[in-house]
Amino acid sequence: MVSLKTLTEKLDLKVALSESELATAIQSLSSLDSAGEGEISFLSSKKYRRVLSATKASAVLVTGEDAELCPEGCIALVVDDPYLAFAKISHYFATESKIAPVIHPSAIIDSEASLGENVSVGPYAVIEKGAVIADGVIIGAHCFIGEQASVGRHSRLHHRVTLAHHCVVGENCQIFSGAVIGSDGFGYAPTETGWYPIAQIGRTVIGDRVEIGANTTIDRGAIDDTVIESDVIIDNQIMIGHNVKVGSKTVVVAQVGIAGSTEIGKNCTIGGQSGFAGHLKIADGSFFAGQSMVTKGTTQAGYYASGIPAQDGNEWRKMVARIRQLEKMNERLKALEERTKED
Amino acid sequence: MVSLKTLTEKLDLKVALSESELATAIQSLSSLDSAGEGEISFLSSKKYRRVLSATKASAVLVTGEDAELCPEGCIALVVDDPYLAFAKISHYFATESKIAPVIHPSAIIDSEASLGENVSVGPYAVIEKGAVIADGVIIGAHCFIGEQASVGRHSRLHHRVTLAHHCVVGENCQIFSGAVIGSDGFGYAPTETGWYPIAQIGRTVIGDRVEIGANTTIDRGAIDDTVIESDVIIDNQIMIGHNVKVGSKTVVVAQVGIAGSTEIGKNCTIGGQSGFAGHLKIADGSFFAGQSMVTKGTTQAGYYASGIPAQDGNEWRKMVARIRQLEKMNERLKALEERTKED
Amino acid sequence: MVSLKTLTEKLDLKVALSESELATAIQSLSSLDSAGEGEISFLSSKKYRRVLSATKASAVLVTGEDAELCPEGCIALVVDDPYLAFAKISHYFATESKIAPVIHPSAIIDSEASLGENVSVGPYAVIEKGAVIADGVIIGAHCFIGEQASVGRHSRLHHRVTLAHHCVVGENCQIFSGAVIGSDGFGYAPTETGWYPIAQIGRTVIGDRVEIGANTTIDRGAIDDTVIESDVIIDNQIMIGHNVKVGSKTVVVAQVGIAGSTEIGKNCTIGGQSGFAGHLKIADGSFFAGQSMVTKGTTQAGYYASGIPAQDGNEWRKMVARIRQLEKMNERLKALEERTKED
Repeated sequence: MVSLKTLTEKLDLKVALSESELATAIQSLSSLDSAGEGEISFLSSKKYRRVLSATKASAVLVTGEDAELCPEGCIALVVDDPYLAFAKISHYFATESKIAPVIHPSAIIDSEASLGENVSVGPYAVIEKGAVIADGVIIGAHCFIGEQASVGRHSRLHHRVTLAHHCVVGENCQIFSGAVIGSDGFGYAPTETGWYPIAQIGRTVIGDRVEIGANTTIDRGAIDDTVIESDVIIDNQIMIGHNVKVGSKTVVVAQVGIAGSTEIGKNCTIGGQSGFAGHLKIADGSFFAGQSMVTKGTTQAGYYASGIPAQDGNEWRKMVARIRQLEKMNERLKALEERTKED
Repeated sequence: MVSLKTLTEKLDLKVALSESELATAIQSLSSLDSAGEGEISFLSSKKYRRVLSATKASAVLVTGEDAELCPEGCIALVVDDPYLAFAKISHYFATESKIAPVIHPSAIIDSEASLGENVSVGPYAVIEKGAVIADGVIIGAHCFIGEQASVGRHSRLHHRVTLAHHCVVGENCQIFSGAVIGSDGFGYAPTETGWYPIAQIGRTVIGDRVEIGANTTIDRGAIDDTVIESDVIIDNQIMIGHNVKVGSKTVVVAQVGIAGSTEIGKNCTIGGQSGFAGHLKIADGSFFAGQSMVTKGTTQAGYYASGIPAQDGNEWRKMVARIRQLEKMNERLKALEERTKED
Repeated sequence: MVSLKTLTEKLDLKVALSESELATAIQSLSSLDSAGEGEISFLSSKKYRRVLSATKASAVLVTGEDAELCPEGCIALVVDDPYLAFAKISHYFATESKIAPVIHPSAIIDSEASLGENVSVGPYAVIEKGAVIADGVIIGAHCFIGEQASVGRHSRLHHRVTLAHHCVVGENCQIFSGAVIGSDGFGYAPTETGWYPIAQIGRTVIGDRVEIGANTTIDRGAIDDTVIESDVIIDNQIMIGHNVKVGSKTVVVAQVGIAGSTEIGKNCTIGGQSGFAGHLKIADGSFFAGQSMVTKGTTQAGYYASGIPAQDGNEWRKMVARIRQLEKMNERLKALEERTKED
C-alpha cells in the first residue's frame, strides 16, 4: 500500500493534485480493464484508449493528450512516458520481501574470499577462494561463485546461479535461477581416436546493469574473453558461445543461440529462438525477427527475418512440394521462353 | 517382481486365467521383441502384430482382436487399451526406491512455513516463510520454495527445482530437475540510457496433474498471473513467458518457446522447438508440427506446420537460390503471359 | 608459467632447439595477433598466414610448410597438427586451481554408496544409496547422484549436475553445470480424463570420454536405455529424448533437440538448434547444418540442410508472399504451356 503522494514524488511529477487526491491509498497495480478502486493503471498504447474511458482504476498514468479520456473519479497522472512511469512505480507493488543483508550461517565462504558491506548470502551458497563480492550484492540460495570470480555492487544472483572461476559480473546486474556463467566453451581438436578438449582459459565478462534470464548459459572464452557489454538484457534459456561479444543495450529474447566468436553490435534486438553461426559480425541496430537463421553478418542497421510462418497443414504440404519442384518450374519457364521466342 | 494376479487386479481385468497362470511371476516389462520368460509386454500398434506372434514374453497386453496372435505359452491379457494398461502397470516395475516421508535434517524450513502430513523434504532443500506444502508432497534435494509459495497434495518436485515466491503448484503434479517456476518475466521499459526493469508482480499458477520437464522455465506474470491449467504436460527445456495461458490437457513438446501473453487453448499439441510470438490466441485442439514458427493465432482446431524439412545440401543450396529468385521468376512469367497474349 | 622445454616434451617434439630457446619461459597462450613476449600461439588455418609473419609471440606452433613465415625472434615449433598441439598444451595455461581429492564435510554420502580412491566431492553434494563413484572422480558442489548411479574413473561432474538413479557415466567424461542426466522421458498414455504417466524404467547410459554441456538434459529410457556412446561431444542446452542412441564421436552443437527413439549414427555432426523427429535412423557420417528440421532418416553420409537464411525484412516479406503464391504460379505456368502448345 502506498499513497499517490509517494508515487508522484517517485515520478517527480509536478501535477496539481488536491490534498485528498494525494492521500489516495493505492493497493496495487492493474491493467486498465481489470483495475478497481485503490488500483493504479496506465495507458501506453493508443489502441487501448477505449478501455481507458471505462476503467474503474483510482488513478491512471497517461500522456497529456489522453488525460481527458479518464473517466469521472479516476485521477489522471500526466507523464511523458506512461510505460516508463509504470515501470518506475511497479517496484512499490513487488510482492517479494526485502532481502536482509545477512550471511546465512550455512553458506560456505572461503576465508580468502572478500565480501563488501551489506552483502546477503543465501543458504547453502558456496563462494570460493579469492572471489570478490562488492557492497550490497545479493547471492541467492544454492549459488556457486568460483575462485577469483567477482560480482559488482548491488548486483543480484537469484537462487542457484553458477558463476565460474575468474568470471566477472558488473554492477546492478540481475542473474536469474539456473543461469550458468563461465562454463567451458565447446572447443575440441579432432584426433584419429576422438576429440581432444581445449582448455578454455578466457573468462566471461559481464558489464553493468545486465540482466540474464533463468537457465541461460554464457560460456567462457577459449583464449580471450566472452564479453557482454553494459545494459544488455538477456532472456531465459539463451546459449551464448565462447568469445561472443554482445554490444551494449542489445536485447536478446528467449532461446536464442549465438555460436562462438560472433560479435553482436549495440542496440540490436534478437528475436526469440534465432540462431547465429559463428564468427559473424552483426551491425549496430540490427533487428532480427524470431527464429531467424543467421548465416551471414550484417553491415547496417535494419530489420532482418527468415523462415516461413506456420499455416494450415495441407497448404503447408503443398507448399513444400512446390518448393521442391522449383528447379523444374524454372526449367519449364525457360523452355517456354525459348519456345515463344522462336515464334 | 509381481504376480499376474496383482497386475490383473490393478487393471481391473475380468479375464479367465487359471490359478497357475495368475501365479506367474513377472519380473519386468519389455518390448515385444526383446521380452523373455518372466516378462510382460504389450501390443499397441497394428504394425507390430508380426512381432507379437514371435514374442517370448510370458504375458502380453492385447486387444481382443489381437489375442489370437499370441504364441503358444504366452498369456494374452485382453484389455480395451493396451497402451494405457501398459502405462498403469509400468509403475510396478519402476526402479526408484519409494521415497520415505521424512524431512531431512539439513533442509532449511522457515518456522512460518506450513507442512502437511507425510511430506518428504530432501537434503539441502530450502523452504521460505509462509510457504504451504500440502500432505504427501515430495520436495527433492536442493529445491528452493520461495516465500508464500504453495504445493498441492501429492505433488513431487524432483531435485533442485525452483518455485519462486507466491507461486502455486496444484495437486499430483510432477516437476523435474532444473525447472524454474516463477522467475521474473522479461519486462523492461526503454529509456534513453538503457532498460528500466518492471517489477513482475504476478505469479505462476499451475493446476492439478501438470507435468513439467527438466530445465523448463515458466516466468511469473507481469501484472496478472501466468497460468498453466490442469492436466497439461510440458516437456524439457521449454520457455513459457509471462502472462501466457496454457489450456487444460495441452501437450507441449521439448524446447518450445511461448512469448508473453499468448493464450494456448485446451487439447492442443505443440511440436518440439516451435516458437510462438506474443499476444496470440490459439484455438482449442490446434496441432502444431515441430519447429513451427507461429506468428498468427488460430481460430479453429486443425493441423498447422511451417518450415522446409532438411534435404541433401546441394539440393538445399539450389532451392534457396531459386526461392531468392522467385520475384524474378514471377516477372518472367508475367512477361511471357503478356507476350503470348499479344500473339 | 612453463618452459618451452616442458611444452615440447609434452608434445613429444623432436625439434632442434638451443638450450636458451628451450629455457624460454611461456606465460600464456594467445592468438597470433594479440600475442606478445612470453606468449605462445599457433597457426591452424592458411588464411591467417599473413598474421603469422607479423606476430610478436615468443613461439608459434606451425606446420613445416609454414615455419619459414615465422618472424625474426619467434621460435617456430613444427608439428603435424598445430591445432591439436595447441589443444594439448592449452591445459598448462588453465586458470582453475587443481582440485584436491577431498570429500567436503558437508557432502551427504549414503553409507551404502561406494567411493574409489582420490575422489573429490564438493560442498553440499548428495550421493545416494548404492551409487558407485570410481577412482579419481570429481563431483562438484550441489551435485546430486541418485541411488545405484555410477560414475567411471576420472570423470568430472561440475557444479550442480543431476545424475538420476541407476544411470551410468563412463570414464574420463565431463558433465557441466546444470545438466540433468536421467530425468524421466516424456511418456504418457492418453485417457478420457487426461494423461496417464508411464513409469520410465530404462536408464541413461553414457560411454567414455563423453562431454556434456551446461543445462543439457538427457532423459532416461522408457523401457530400454537411452545410450550415448563413447567419444561423443554434446554442447549446452541440448535435449535428448528417451531411448535415443547417439553413435560414437558424433558432435552435437548447442540447443539441438532429438525426439524419442531416434538413432544418430557415428561420426555425425549435428548443427546447433537442429531438431529431429522421433524414431528416425540417421546414417553414420551425416552432417546437418544448424537449424535443420529433420523429419526423415538418412541412409548415407552426406551434408544435409534446411531452412532459408535470414535476409532483409522487406525482401523476406515479398519472398514469403511469393512462396504462398507458388500454387498459383504453377497454374499460370501450366496455362501458358497449354496455350503456347496450341499455337
